[in-house]
Amino acid sequence: MNVKERLGARGRDVEAYLAGCLRGKGAPERLLAAMEYSLLAGGKRLRPVLVLTWAELLGCDAAAVMPFAASMELIHTYSLIHDDLPAMDDDDLRRGRPSNHKQFDEATAILAGDGLLTEAFGLMADASLAGGLPADRVLRAVRVLAAAAGAGGMVGGQAVDMEFTGRTGVTLDELRAMHAMKTGALITAACECGAILSGAGEADVDNAREYGRSVGVAFQIVDDILDVVGDTATLGKPVGSDEAQGKSTYPALVGLDRSKELAAGHVRDATDRLEPYSGNEKEFLSALARYIVDRVC
Amino acid sequence: MNVKERLGARGRDVEAYLAGCLRGKGAPERLLAAMEYSLLAGGKRLRPVLVLTWAELLGCDAAAVMPFAASMELIHTYSLIHDDLPAMDDDDLRRGRPSNHKQFDEATAILAGDGLLTEAFGLMADASLAGGLPADRVLRAVRVLAAAAGAGGMVGGQAVDMEFTGRTGVTLDELRAMHAMKTGALITAACECGAILSGAGEADVDNAREYGRSVGVAFQIVDDILDVVGDTATLGKPVGSDEAQGKSTYPALVGLDRSKELAAGHVRDATDRLEPYSGNEKEFLSALARYIVDRVC
Repeated sequence: MNVKERLGARGRDVEAYLAGCLRGKGAPERLLAAMEYSLLAGGKRLRPVLVLTWAELLGCDAAAVMPFAASMELIHTYSLIHDDLPAMDDDDLRRGRPSNHKQFDEATAILAGDGLLTEAFGLMADASLAGGLPADRVLRAVRVLAAAAGAGGMVGGQAVDMEFTGRTGVTLDELRAMHAMKTGALITAACECGAILSGAGEADVDNAREYGRSVGVAFQIVDDILDVVGDTATLGKPVGSDEAQGKSTYPALVGLDRSKELAAGHVRDATDRLEPYSGNEKEFLSALARYIVDRVC
Repeated sequence: MNVKERLGARGRDVEAYLAGCLRGKGAPERLLAAMEYSLLAGGKRLRPVLVLTWAELLGCDAAAVMPFAASMELIHTYSLIHDDLPAMDDDDLRRGRPSNHKQFDEATAILAGDGLLTEAFGLMADASLAGGLPADRVLRAVRVLAAAAGAGGMVGGQAVDMEFTGRTGVTLDELRAMHAMKTGALITAACECGAILSGAGEADVDNAREYGRSVGVAFQIVDDILDVVGDTATLGKPVGSDEAQGKSTYPALVGLDRSKELAAGHVRDATDRLEPYSGNEKEFLSALARYIVDRVC
């Protein structure tokens, strides 16, 4: 299994859907340009791929799930646009290009984020209205995703992260809780929603959720590590920008070696959850979890 | 029919639901405070009341529709918070109190808006998961609302409004199109979603939509008029603030008298759509449409 190849191929399927999903819906030209500037700026499309792969692992057709999978990328993209704003992390660069408010303007960036978040939920509805998935499954997944992306999840995590910035004495437990909300919740929800949309039972939904939770934590630790040891091209933002902003990170709190050990442990927890399954999707999910850590370990 | 009394009573039902709807969902304390600061700042709850009343007119139980109706107020509130931001309309006052970013800070205001918008869609799902409405109806309404609130609707209207500000030579047609997106789309969707959630047929959904469209236009014209002739207490923002910002308004383009005539005409169009119905809800919707214009005419 070549995980990079498989991830690339899946990412391109998502990309093709994303390229058309904002068109023909009456958005003003400049606003649409700003939304697509960030949505189509590349990236691995990890969250949609997790939705698709978990759905397929549990016997669901990928095409039906695609609108819902794609919606995760709209949510992820909007969060990056808003996080980069001057009032938030004030980042000028994102994926090696000017951040949205630098390329357009601050008002447009705020609205582009709002537009992406709103349309994300429209796409989720499309998974049933156009994709034919049972409406009750889709609504259950909408509820999971709204909780994961909202004030008790991703949005709340960013709020806590802002409170931590420049504050001394943030503990590892506090850092973990913040990351679980800020980045973990959406990755966890991606896996859980894939399972829900497939119509799987509670044991499978649990496995998907816990796999996602472990992958999410590993992903964040690796991101912190890359901020210390990576290069700007890989990271798409200046190396050391977290440190420069006084942000708490895993390496700063427990050191580089212990951070790598922690990440590897979470990857093992994730792959343990794949035990009951077999086939290509299982192998891919397993390889994907390891791939995240292989970036640095 | 005392329309103010009835609107007040309905508004209080909505208020009671809103007061609890953000609690117990894991939002960090300060973020929750910011969300509730704006959500529970009063207001007529016009959009939720329109959802509830159209649903009841067409035979649906109001309690089941409440979570969906309330979600409209979360969306309306988030849009006010983001519109007030320094990068947008830069308003220090909202409903007679400091605007959200003045009371808290800019980052918190952006995130409070994001959190409200996200949870709105969670509440919509609750209308089926907790309220027992058929999932397919709710999803259809989610799709309508996402289109109305997003880049082709409310968010797009705000983007166009920003482009108009300070620009000379905005025509009445351009102004109409902008308002139809910025404020009309959500009011229209409120009525349409009420009808959809009740399980009504296409003719009823059409009537609800067109009633909403006419009321929305009338509402905006009256808002423009109040900016010229009202007082700060009624308006909750400084009189003349639109003019000071170089915003195009109906009175500026066609004069005060013609603006009032136009508003009255749209109210007649709205009440015409109620022709097929009877009973208390019909009378209330009819009185509600007239009440909007009575504020100034």
